[in-house]
Amino acid sequence: MANKTAPDSARRSEKSRRAIYDAALALVGEVGYQKTTIEGIAARAGVGKQTIYRWWASKAEVLLEAFLDLSAQAAEAAARPEVVGEHAEYEIPDTGDLEADLKAVLRATVDELLDPKFEVPSRALAAEGVVNRQLGTEFVGKLLEPQLQLYVKRLRAAQEQGAVRPDIDPRIALELFVSPLAQRWLQYTGPISYDYTDALVEYALYGLAPR
Amino acid sequence: MANKTAPDSARRSEKSRRAIYDAALALVGEVGYQKTTIEGIAARAGVGKQTIYRWWASKAEVLLEAFLDLSAQAAEAAARPEVVGEHAEYEIPDTGDLEADLKAVLRATVDELLDPKFEVPSRALAAEGVVNRQLGTEFVGKLLEPQLQLYVKRLRAAQEQGAVRPDIDPRIALELFVSPLAQRWLQYTGPISYDYTDALVEYALYGLAPR
Repeated sequence: MANKTAPDSARRSEKSRRAIYDAALALVGEVGYQKTTIEGIAARAGVGKQTIYRWWASKAEVLLEAFLDLSAQAAEAAARPEVVGEHAEYEIPDTGDLEADLKAVLRATVDELLDPKFEVPSRALAAEGVVNRQLGTEFVGKLLEPQLQLYVKRLRAAQEQGAVRPDIDPRIALELFVSPLAQRWLQYTGPISYDYTDALVEYALYGLAPR
Repeated sequence: MANKTAPDSARRSEKSRRAIYDAALALVGEVGYQKTTIEGIAARAGVGKQTIYRWWASKAEVLLEAFLDLSAQAAEAAARPEVVGEHAEYEIPDTGDLEADLKAVLRATVDELLDPKFEVPSRALAAEGVVNRQLGTEFVGKLLEPQLQLYVKRLRAAQEQGAVRPDIDPRIALELFVSPLAQRWLQYTGPISYDYTDALVEYALYGLAPR
């Protein structure tokens, strides 16, 4: 909608910005974080280096925004945004059935993790984050943690509804189903599928011990 | 014991082998997997390149054995080996108290993950494995999976003892407490401590839902 009434200069800027994001994600996926440069991104996007420096101070900043944009696109594709003020915010659905809601969101995550458009640049960035604590911490704080906080919110609602024990720390609890999927994806420790994430949710909610 | 009666040549070989392992682990921690070379390992270990090629075909093979040796040292330090035939094998203790046994082994893992001797080379290798599927799969299969199978064995014993539900898949179940710790360590998604791993074990065994 906004584009229809935007002036030409704004539309050109938006087009350049998108070209820069695409170039940055493609390049980091191909050559890795270390060898990705502002010059390389500019050349691939077909813009001048100064165009990039006008908007961002470093390649880390370009990549951070490119990933935020990629996540927003994925969320939009999954039709999960709720527009709040100017920002699209994302929520884990609350149908009152925690097990079903968690299974649905984890199934969507499986699809995203297996989408090459997401997977290739994400792996490059994750690999750098493992050995570069500053980058890892910054990207996790800005990209991953906000997504994890959606689980915290949903689990808190479940606690209020009596579906999760009140003494559970939701920030730790979410890791019982999120981290196994993340590790299988990151480290190739096993296949990922809907059956797998469904099992994780069931095991986490009802425990391994006999009830 | 064996060293006392070993001929001088065997003792020299053992000394060279250990020097090569140490050099390989130090180098990969400093410059990463990509920039680690047989030449660099040989120079640092003070041996000829041919000495390395006599025993190993590639840097991946040297590093794999160096990590296996490092893990064996860590396990010996934790006094967990049971000598079976010629090989030291490692087991998760079975005191009959699954919760206590899992907490103990995860606390030992926290110590290992925070030990720089283990952490620095392990991060370098893990980072490469994220973007290099062949290497990741090989190293996980030879280094990580055998450790995960110790949990499978302990959980199967727990199923026989009635402490874990019989319909649970132990290979998935172990991920509820192992993967969260792995992800916090790999991706800096949160602090790791004994309290944290204790909580993971409790949540996994008894579930998040009210009982």
